Amino acid sequence: MSPPDLLGYAATFLTTAAFVPQVVQILRTRDTRAISLGMYLLFCAGVAMWALYGLLLTAWPIILANGVTLLLALVVLAYKLTESRRA
Amino acid sequence: MSPPDLLGYAATFLTTAAFVPQVVQILRTRDTRAISLGMYLLFCAGVAMWALYGLLLTAWPIILANGVTLLLALVVLAYKLTESRRA
Repeated sequence: MSPPDLLGYAATFLTTAAFVPQVVQILRTRDTRAISLGMYLLFCAGVAMWALYGLLLTAWPIILANGVTLLLALVVLAYKLTESRRA
Repeated sequence: MSPPDLLGYAATFLTTAAFVPQVVQILRTRDTRAISLGMYLLFCAGVAMWALYGLLLTAWPIILANGVTLLLALVVLAYKLTESRRA
């Protein structure tokens, strides 16, 4: 694997794994007030498009990374959308 | 431009633009409590690696998209890091 390839895989891992501590914190605290609804609406739409892009190109690393990121971001979005019912 | 290319550009635009409403909300409310420090540490590191990956490949769309995303995510991280001083 070339150095840029390695860097790309490490970057993909980090930007996907980043959402794990956010999901854990929300599951623990149920607090989503400071989280922007607009951000997660745009982000989920964008990541879903990335996953679709991967599907069109049958590019499994793109499908997998964006599929996992989408699932994690959807959890944040779901909690944000039900925030008013908990407050 | 092919349909997958168009989808890729739209996806890039959305995942970068997503951070704008989050930054705006933080600048307005100064509230970062529900935001995960771990998420923004990992995310900034990952996006910085993506930008470096773009530099190594002289791929301007990758440099630009990740450069802008990094700046926005760093604003969120900076506010999160100074949270305790405001609370």
